[in-house]
Amino acid sequence: MNDPAAGKIAIIGAGAVGCYYGGLLARSGCDVRFLMRSDLETARQHGLTIKTRGKTVKLSPVRACATTAEIGVCELVIVALKATANAALDELLPPLIGPQTLLLTLQNGLGNEEYLAQRWGAERVLGALCFVCLNRTAPGVVEHYDHGTLCIGEFRRPSAERTRNIAEAFSAAGIETHVVENLLTERWRKLLWNIPFNGLSIAGGGITVADVLADERLRSLARHLMDDALDAARRLGHEIPDSFAEFQIERSCSMGPYKPSSLLDWQAGRPVEVEAIWGEPWRQGVAAGASMGRLETLYRLLQVLTKS
Amino acid sequence: MNDPAAGKIAIIGAGAVGCYYGGLLARSGCDVRFLMRSDLETARQHGLTIKTRGKTVKLSPVRACATTAEIGVCELVIVALKATANAALDELLPPLIGPQTLLLTLQNGLGNEEYLAQRWGAERVLGALCFVCLNRTAPGVVEHYDHGTLCIGEFRRPSAERTRNIAEAFSAAGIETHVVENLLTERWRKLLWNIPFNGLSIAGGGITVADVLADERLRSLARHLMDDALDAARRLGHEIPDSFAEFQIERSCSMGPYKPSSLLDWQAGRPVEVEAIWGEPWRQGVAAGASMGRLETLYRLLQVLTKS
Repeated sequence: MNDPAAGKIAIIGAGAVGCYYGGLLARSGCDVRFLMRSDLETARQHGLTIKTRGKTVKLSPVRACATTAEIGVCELVIVALKATANAALDELLPPLIGPQTLLLTLQNGLGNEEYLAQRWGAERVLGALCFVCLNRTAPGVVEHYDHGTLCIGEFRRPSAERTRNIAEAFSAAGIETHVVENLLTERWRKLLWNIPFNGLSIAGGGITVADVLADERLRSLARHLMDDALDAARRLGHEIPDSFAEFQIERSCSMGPYKPSSLLDWQAGRPVEVEAIWGEPWRQGVAAGASMGRLETLYRLLQVLTKS
Repeated sequence: MNDPAAGKIAIIGAGAVGCYYGGLLARSGCDVRFLMRSDLETARQHGLTIKTRGKTVKLSPVRACATTAEIGVCELVIVALKATANAALDELLPPLIGPQTLLLTLQNGLGNEEYLAQRWGAERVLGALCFVCLNRTAPGVVEHYDHGTLCIGEFRRPSAERTRNIAEAFSAAGIETHVVENLLTERWRKLLWNIPFNGLSIAGGGITVADVLADERLRSLARHLMDDALDAARRLGHEIPDSFAEFQIERSCSMGPYKPSSLLDWQAGRPVEVEAIWGEPWRQGVAAGASMGRLETLYRLLQVLTKS
């Protein structure tokens, strides 16, 4: 099949991200199956609810399954678990994977495409960055606050027809979607923001983006952490212009007392993606010869503070 | 006068350190005047009480004064304020200082001798490191838990007769006292421990020395912070052997769930000496060309967490 999005699609990890993107795909006519645990009964009886910009979108019925064996082999598997739960994929994914199955991770940070590629082959792996503010407010209910853009690309390959087909399916579902030629470069660009702001918001004791920027000393540290990540990214072959870091700081000034997703996770007692956002970039930067002392300290403290 | 300790001695900062060392000097016959504020009336009526190793030492009467004008010019002024309160010295010290007056700081970290030297002349400045566990448990009452050793030296000069005279006065008061030839080298040696352990105990969310050592990741960070401080100290001309850092880690393993003094200060809502222990070493290390990224991150986070 040339268009994997025209076939059977599994959503693994039916938290806010999985329900939102999978729900919109289902509404637009795709054949979407949701793997669900705690929300299974609610979803079977009442479907999914997406509240967005004052509107409530009801999706009912949805195809919610208790096991991946029940779902069976798919054309496209969308992984929307927390990166901290990747070990669960070893048991979850095999029933879904046939010779043609593609794997698309919507997870944060570095290392998730690699995780899939090592186990099920690099050639079937794609990734996407989600720029979205979401919250799962009740079983089967997702609140959508802002944005939603996807940047989708192949794992260590330029985009192909299948990349554009998947992107078109998301676009047809009403999601602003861009195809990117270098997925890992985009991941590093996003990390340039996530590393300092998600990290300092937790290590600073539970503070917002505005707090980080208002304190000149923290703002300077945030900028230095960005510069270190930029240096690491360039050593790894990613072209990111000098102006990008400064732009990220300026862009953040308009965010106000915004709480990064990792801070929300931490404050709610949920796992924080410490390895994907800080550990893996630190390891890759060190291996590339970059000076990563600032990130090392932040990473180690986050491991302790989040009990990772 | 050849022996400053034989003349009038002022104790500025009558917290645990000032009351303990000043109290023992007074008991041994020195002419000690305590500048006191909150403890003034209690000290005038009941003297000072030092509880140490099951014994209670009562010192009554003590010469407690409300102002330094009341004390007047001294031969020796012992500064035992928190380093965070140094600005108060600008008004407190002038009435105490005549042409021959010596200034001895018992404060922690870097920058305190410099503070005194810049204002009242380097030639009159001495410093001492206190290796002691103390707590002021009530007005006029100090609990002494362990140790008490002083290492006393001249500011950027080798020791002299006056250094030995002052050291002898402390020795005669029952305090183990050593004269050191390079005070700043000793300060860096002490910082090699204080920087990681005091710092990580706070930034780790309120953890003990045993917690830092039990977590391999934090222990490795502690060791790296020590190596950075060692590199900075050497660039600044201080000779500290390689084995010293490893020895500090091993020594700490016998401490158990020990809470560094900065952690106790932080948890009690008292000021933490962030500039003296982290800020000034970081600045001096950077100026000497050392790579201080780990310390930068720790320092900035401590500024925020302690609201310094």
